[in-house]
Amino acid sequence: MSASLIDGKALAAKVKSQLVESVAQVKAERGFPPGIAVVRVGEDPASKIYVTSKKKTAEELGFGSWEHALPATTTQAELLDWVRRLNADPKVDGILVQLPLPKHIDSNAVLLAIDPAKDVDGFHPCNAGSLFQGRPALAPCTPSGVMRMLEEISFSPAGKKAVVVGRSNIVGRPMAALLINASATVTVCHSKSDVAHEVRQADVVVAAVGISGLIKGEWVKPGSVVIDVGMNRGPDGKLSGDVEFAAAKERAGWITPVPGGVGPMTIAMLMSNTVQAAGPNCGRAKR
Amino acid sequence: MSASLIDGKALAAKVKSQLVESVAQVKAERGFPPGIAVVRVGEDPASKIYVTSKKKTAEELGFGSWEHALPATTTQAELLDWVRRLNADPKVDGILVQLPLPKHIDSNAVLLAIDPAKDVDGFHPCNAGSLFQGRPALAPCTPSGVMRMLEEISFSPAGKKAVVVGRSNIVGRPMAALLINASATVTVCHSKSDVAHEVRQADVVVAAVGISGLIKGEWVKPGSVVIDVGMNRGPDGKLSGDVEFAAAKERAGWITPVPGGVGPMTIAMLMSNTVQAAGPNCGRAKR
Repeated sequence: MSASLIDGKALAAKVKSQLVESVAQVKAERGFPPGIAVVRVGEDPASKIYVTSKKKTAEELGFGSWEHALPATTTQAELLDWVRRLNADPKVDGILVQLPLPKHIDSNAVLLAIDPAKDVDGFHPCNAGSLFQGRPALAPCTPSGVMRMLEEISFSPAGKKAVVVGRSNIVGRPMAALLINASATVTVCHSKSDVAHEVRQADVVVAAVGISGLIKGEWVKPGSVVIDVGMNRGPDGKLSGDVEFAAAKERAGWITPVPGGVGPMTIAMLMSNTVQAAGPNCGRAKR
Repeated sequence: MSASLIDGKALAAKVKSQLVESVAQVKAERGFPPGIAVVRVGEDPASKIYVTSKKKTAEELGFGSWEHALPATTTQAELLDWVRRLNADPKVDGILVQLPLPKHIDSNAVLLAIDPAKDVDGFHPCNAGSLFQGRPALAPCTPSGVMRMLEEISFSPAGKKAVVVGRSNIVGRPMAALLINASATVTVCHSKSDVAHEVRQADVVVAAVGISGLIKGEWVKPGSVVIDVGMNRGPDGKLSGDVEFAAAKERAGWITPVPGGVGPMTIAMLMSNTVQAAGPNCGRAKR
């Protein structure tokens, strides 16, 4: 048996096309579209590329979109002033401070300064806690994208055994929260766990540990769903995931490729979060 | 083999006696002791008993302690005013609104109104999120008490397999967060999971599902640690836990009795949280 591929590129395009209508609706209701402001500090080339593609997507979908490119010499106080200004700007529904920030700035202090109602990355502890308690929240984009993928293949996590490999605040932990909220039996493990033992039992495994090929194909439960969040650049410059793709594909029922799997979903879900942030509930918290 | 008992009553007494010094220290530093305010609405007899014992413990340990017993006719707006007043009172480090509240009051709105820096129950989403992200936080008292028990028996969760049965916001989820932070491999399951399968693998199991005897003794891994948070009152009026105690005791290495196990730890950890809330970090957030 060979697994079906979950095409993140195609699904991301579908999600974005579905957002166009919601964007128009928000604009019709309040006179201006959902707006996202991206703040970038310094000249990190990767950050420039990310920010450009986020801005491009936002404009394609009819969002209000602002990029604030600040010099590498920007002080923490100046950056915090930017965040406060954007917190107060009613046209801005989503605020994104592109990481990494220059060494002299405390990223944590900056992220904590973002109004949770505008925290479209879902990194603020108040959003993390609402998510973890099963309340309405802005959820981190990558795990939200994974949930959207499961929905697309009509995989219902309820009563299923889910294994999350990796416990970062950006992917692993919020992923576990979303799967717990969806009534799965959820195991969170890390690189020092007996990952083989856990993965063998998993109806769905989400690999987000950042170690190329850590998850061996032979561990994959036949027919299970394998979601690979890993993005590891090899010495040859090639991208690879946390899963041994070829071998896993022979056993899994569904599997995501790297690249072209979870990656493209992230920006789509960022846009989806921004529409959510423009909605009445977040809005009420915001204004 | 028969398991050793973890005596929650004795450990709670030890924790409380250790707090006396910290209380004196806070008082010496700022001129007044850590203070806890408990708000109770209506005449729920169980609530009266809980509040009285919390107040009694606070006074024994030298805390500032206030009980506000409001009539059952108190409106939500009036209760929210009480919370705001206590948020603003520098002598109050911890605020506790005793649940359940009368039907006409939205408990959730009230809990969200408590300053997270004074949320000594650890129920506010901002505290839940800080805990879940591994940041300093006021953690819910019962799971904190469980962690203190594990410390007392020198059980280190790092690399161990932990199974949490139950996913409530008061016990199951924060328990999972604390165990993940302690580098365990953590599985969160619920009444519809294959609990037998999970428990058989657990080096430590925390049962917090509220179903008497759900966890069969034969499932318990020999030598493992069994923590029973269940408090189920039978038709005969007798208290029982979520674990088949007698049978589990024959297999476990350590086990908590019900009553006299986790129960007594909760008030002790509430007092510990209040001392923490009086500390400089929470304090800075607070004033």
